[in-house]
Amino acid sequence: MSDTPNTTEHRYDALHLITDEVLARYANTPDPRLRELMLSLIKHIHSFAKEVKLTSEEWAFAMNFLEQTGQWCSPGRNEFMIFSDALGLSMLTVTQDYPRSQHATEPTLVGPFLLENAPEFAMGEDISAGAAGTPMYAQGQILDMHGQPVAHAVIDVWHSDDRGLYDVQDGIEEKGPWARAQLTTGADGRYSFWSVLPVDYPVPQDGTAIQMLQATTGRSWRPAHLHFRIQAPGQRPLITHIFDRNSKNLDSDAVFGVRPSLIADFKPQTPGQAPDGKRMDRDFFTLDYNFIMTDALA
Amino acid sequence: MSDTPNTTEHRYDALHLITDEVLARYANTPDPRLRELMLSLIKHIHSFAKEVKLTSEEWAFAMNFLEQTGQWCSPGRNEFMIFSDALGLSMLTVTQDYPRSQHATEPTLVGPFLLENAPEFAMGEDISAGAAGTPMYAQGQILDMHGQPVAHAVIDVWHSDDRGLYDVQDGIEEKGPWARAQLTTGADGRYSFWSVLPVDYPVPQDGTAIQMLQATTGRSWRPAHLHFRIQAPGQRPLITHIFDRNSKNLDSDAVFGVRPSLIADFKPQTPGQAPDGKRMDRDFFTLDYNFIMTDALA
Repeated sequence: MSDTPNTTEHRYDALHLITDEVLARYANTPDPRLRELMLSLIKHIHSFAKEVKLTSEEWAFAMNFLEQTGQWCSPGRNEFMIFSDALGLSMLTVTQDYPRSQHATEPTLVGPFLLENAPEFAMGEDISAGAAGTPMYAQGQILDMHGQPVAHAVIDVWHSDDRGLYDVQDGIEEKGPWARAQLTTGADGRYSFWSVLPVDYPVPQDGTAIQMLQATTGRSWRPAHLHFRIQAPGQRPLITHIFDRNSKNLDSDAVFGVRPSLIADFKPQTPGQAPDGKRMDRDFFTLDYNFIMTDALA
Repeated sequence: MSDTPNTTEHRYDALHLITDEVLARYANTPDPRLRELMLSLIKHIHSFAKEVKLTSEEWAFAMNFLEQTGQWCSPGRNEFMIFSDALGLSMLTVTQDYPRSQHATEPTLVGPFLLENAPEFAMGEDISAGAAGTPMYAQGQILDMHGQPVAHAVIDVWHSDDRGLYDVQDGIEEKGPWARAQLTTGADGRYSFWSVLPVDYPVPQDGTAIQMLQATTGRSWRPAHLHFRIQAPGQRPLITHIFDRNSKNLDSDAVFGVRPSLIADFKPQTPGQAPDGKRMDRDFFTLDYNFIMTDALA
């Protein structure tokens, strides 16, 4: 055995000294906000490990699980976001981050399937691009906090088909995007599009997040919804869903995204004239929903 | 706007209710230990996000950073482990997990580069497999807590070459492993091998962990060391390093792995006869270090 003089700057082989030593090191982080984030993160990670007396076997499992999670990521799917959603972190962040105006549309989580550069459509067009499902006509208006229409609002909309799948889960590389679009409002702030009715679906069945949910809450379903991201000059970006009131899973959303104000009626319609004048020879659904944005400076 | 009756099981659109709602959901986790881990993890993740008032932009950065981290993982390299090491979590876990016997060799973190099924060598052989560096002869004995030699101890050893690189960082697929071996002790518990002297090296320069370290502590170097994992019947597995007392980075190990008892003399030798009788026509180093294992039941 070698001699063992105490040559190190700090002794941190005692459990209660490790956290102090790590915090002291990161206290030199130059950027103040990054320093604040790192010190709090270290404090809470260490508190967690100490509170549960994390074992080496559990640590090794976690390291392997994180590596596997990384391998499930692909363009349009971030598996880490599903964990963040399923652990309530996403809704916590959204809720504390947005200044809440009394009448503004409530935000909800973005989810793992947003893609930038979605295909552009004109108002009233069919954005389904062949997605399977019952036709749905959605319309409404983008308004500001003062009730005025928001012109030049860029609306991203994306949603599942009637199998509960998104384009990124089913061959977007070969087939191209479907049930995904970007629309831009005119002076009246109005939007409208045809697509297919979204349905309830479970968290992706092939990744690591579903493994966690099956072993814990046992709840992996999301209620049927449309995703919206709305961006406009002078307005705070709004990311939200509109949920179908007929969903059986409104009370048990796997990712805690439901808010009562975001539940709307997707109304069944029999064959006949649609709101835009189109003649429909089969059943379809209609949705009317207005969005109220918040001033960027509010 | 649709009507907004409160149809959900729980209202959790108020910030202070979100954590309660998430904890209530995970309280149904069937396995008691997993339940304990998840509830503590959720509590601490939420406390962190609330304490720093995590913004959506910071959350999105983190999700992207985690995805990138996953993409740096490969066989023999787990980038998440480097984060765990750099944030002190690994040493915290190791320290609280191992029962400390007064005389036993101290454990330290495993690091991201361990491979199972390392090539087997006989005692005294050269394990460097062509790695660049100054020759080094290491020897010692594996002992139990009662001072008796441990027979049939399986020793994994792995270390850097004189560029500070491991085989997994430099073409292991083409060249095969180098400076990596598995040795098994006989009845005398003794081990010995030739290899090359390890050197100080920084955390891998091409991943995400180095980005974090550069932005925070500014310390990314590890002191020169050999990795050992020793497994034997009736003994608790021992994972540790032996550090070179001549390293300039003993006081600032990027991953908090140094312990005074693990610092040893890698002794410079001039050309002549080596401890095993081999004639050396160039300078070399010798290391003598005994390991004391802990009873599996201790």
